[in-house]
Amino acid sequence: MELQIRTPRRSLSRDWTIAIGDHTFDYCVRSGGRAWSDLLPRLAALQVDHFVMIADTGVREKAEEACRRIAALPGSTCTLFLLPVNEATKSIATIEQLSLRAEHEVGITVNSCIIGFGGGLVANIAGFLAAIQFRGLRLIQMPTTLLSMADVMPSVKQGVNTSAGKNHLGTYTAPLFVWADLTSLRTLPRIEIQSALCEMMKFILTIAPPHGSTLYETIIAELHPDMRYQEDQLLRIIHLCVEAKCQILAGDPHEQGEGLLFEYGHTVGHALELLSSQGPDPLPHGLAIGLGMLVAARVARMLGLLSEREEKTHHGFLHLIGVPTRIPATLSTDAILALLRHDNKRGRLKALPDDEIAMVLLRHLHEPHRTEKTVLTRVPLTVVRAAIEATRLDVFA
Amino acid sequence: MELQIRTPRRSLSRDWTIAIGDHTFDYCVRSGGRAWSDLLPRLAALQVDHFVMIADTGVREKAEEACRRIAALPGSTCTLFLLPVNEATKSIATIEQLSLRAEHEVGITVNSCIIGFGGGLVANIAGFLAAIQFRGLRLIQMPTTLLSMADVMPSVKQGVNTSAGKNHLGTYTAPLFVWADLTSLRTLPRIEIQSALCEMMKFILTIAPPHGSTLYETIIAELHPDMRYQEDQLLRIIHLCVEAKCQILAGDPHEQGEGLLFEYGHTVGHALELLSSQGPDPLPHGLAIGLGMLVAARVARMLGLLSEREEKTHHGFLHLIGVPTRIPATLSTDAILALLRHDNKRGRLKALPDDEIAMVLLRHLHEPHRTEKTVLTRVPLTVVRAAIEATRLDVFA
Repeated sequence: MELQIRTPRRSLSRDWTIAIGDHTFDYCVRSGGRAWSDLLPRLAALQVDHFVMIADTGVREKAEEACRRIAALPGSTCTLFLLPVNEATKSIATIEQLSLRAEHEVGITVNSCIIGFGGGLVANIAGFLAAIQFRGLRLIQMPTTLLSMADVMPSVKQGVNTSAGKNHLGTYTAPLFVWADLTSLRTLPRIEIQSALCEMMKFILTIAPPHGSTLYETIIAELHPDMRYQEDQLLRIIHLCVEAKCQILAGDPHEQGEGLLFEYGHTVGHALELLSSQGPDPLPHGLAIGLGMLVAARVARMLGLLSEREEKTHHGFLHLIGVPTRIPATLSTDAILALLRHDNKRGRLKALPDDEIAMVLLRHLHEPHRTEKTVLTRVPLTVVRAAIEATRLDVFA
Repeated sequence: MELQIRTPRRSLSRDWTIAIGDHTFDYCVRSGGRAWSDLLPRLAALQVDHFVMIADTGVREKAEEACRRIAALPGSTCTLFLLPVNEATKSIATIEQLSLRAEHEVGITVNSCIIGFGGGLVANIAGFLAAIQFRGLRLIQMPTTLLSMADVMPSVKQGVNTSAGKNHLGTYTAPLFVWADLTSLRTLPRIEIQSALCEMMKFILTIAPPHGSTLYETIIAELHPDMRYQEDQLLRIIHLCVEAKCQILAGDPHEQGEGLLFEYGHTVGHALELLSSQGPDPLPHGLAIGLGMLVAARVARMLGLLSEREEKTHHGFLHLIGVPTRIPATLSTDAILALLRHDNKRGRLKALPDDEIAMVLLRHLHEPHRTEKTVLTRVPLTVVRAAIEATRLDVFA
């Protein structure tokens, strides 16, 4: 990843060039007035006839304002399609409806452009629509959540869910560019910031920092459970995540090999997220992943891979972020284990018996345990069960 | 296109390497026993866990036989999904249904492979499913019609229709290889052969033959309205079409520029096809395109581009193929003209008024008339009307 620093003393502005496989695109971070004064000339240069902005109903006002500004460009229209975005609307039916609305209500052509405005779900929907409408329209991503800026944008994975699974239909498609306006994070609920920080911790725990970089230390030193993060701090957090993720994606654009590291904490984390979503207290994605990483750390310790000190580091990070370090009693171990049988990493290890699962484990901080030419390890369910039980009481608290 | 000739004296066998943009794939033509003895080792080498064969109900028996042979490969299963293939089933809903059946009934994984078995429609459906299932599965095309072998296979365009238009959702996706078994053409109805020959004529009329090639002359000399074509003749026909199409696609993989030549005869031809499909005597695609080319030739002559002799060549070719050279009286000129307003080439010329359409025209045989840096020409509807009327009586018959 190439880093260009522009006029750092006025308002915040960073441009990165992201390279993932054959895809290359710009990732631009701005704050304040430059978020618009830099964007509009860039959009005008594209000579787009119609912009179609797909946004989450949760960011309606920001999206309407953005749409008005873009529609004022000479020669272009901009139409806003608002969606109640959740895993259920992330479907192929939604894609077809958006396609038909864009054709009938807007009259899009091959010279039109799709904008994804919102969080990661809306980015995947907008990205997949752009990938297949007329066999490919131009795409611009305008993420408005820290999770999307830090973890979803450095990726070319687009897609929707089917009843058979999450993201089972999709493509690898890059945007023209990503435009991240830090101003939009000002009103983001604290728990969404914390959720993104859990994913950042995943990168810190699994991937070694670039040689000579002190970014990890700087960011960790700034973390505090009650923190309201400043824009320069948020920029550093995004920088760390984008850099770490791209370091892996450069060699594994489709996340089939080393990219499975991004699944750290996700095996048990996904199960906790899904299970809790059926009850009164749904765990936000990042918080579920945080707990999943604690289980993975405990499993690794039980298998003699991680030291007590290294496991404790996992807990310490979550304490700094201010998120739970104990699996809620309402989520039963049996129910969690039942869901693990459907984990999508199962097929990656050959002939995995029913009483084992495939997990990403660490043998040291920043160093995955490798077996069978993968970053996955076969783990007996009995060990996972014990690790889940152990994560109900935080002995390091 | 690179041509390799293998053991031409025994059974027919040709392997071409097709290069379209960044996509490269093998196009293999076989006949007789080699269609299977060469294919099976090739399939075995892929180490596929599950083959899913998508086929038209019209080729049920051939597909079942093919599926049995492939299922006998050690380590692989092969499951047949039969579809009543028509423009209505070529939908995103069909793609999702196939995806769910493949997951639930077969248990496909990232190591599975989709096979398209049948005509061009099934190829587009199978191709699009392979493009987006798990963000891309392997794809093999086994065309069973001459039109698909000659005109659809040398292409990476996949897609489905929406209510807004044909192929409005899709991707550019290449197969691993195309496997064309000439044996499957033995039982093809004569009119389907003639339909494919009309598309071949489109290539002959619009694209100059490779320097020094006598293929055009050889094939034209072999045409006869009552002909039953031999396999070596069919191979030459496929060769001509694949070579002509790839010559253009090499420089224009997405068919946005020079590739619009493939639309020759299609402006009026599509209207005739659609209109006649609503009546008792639907015109097969190729025959409609044949008539569309006659209208295009007449328009070109009215605009002073083509000579009488060159227009006559158009009619002579259709006579040799044995297809109609007169627009049926049941299709009214007003109804045809009304449909032309929705032609998808309209948007390619700027600010085209309602009383003009965009057509591919020739200024000489093998030489398109170019305007506004395209191979399209603005034509007043009054001229099109007169040309349609003139094509109701074949003055060259």
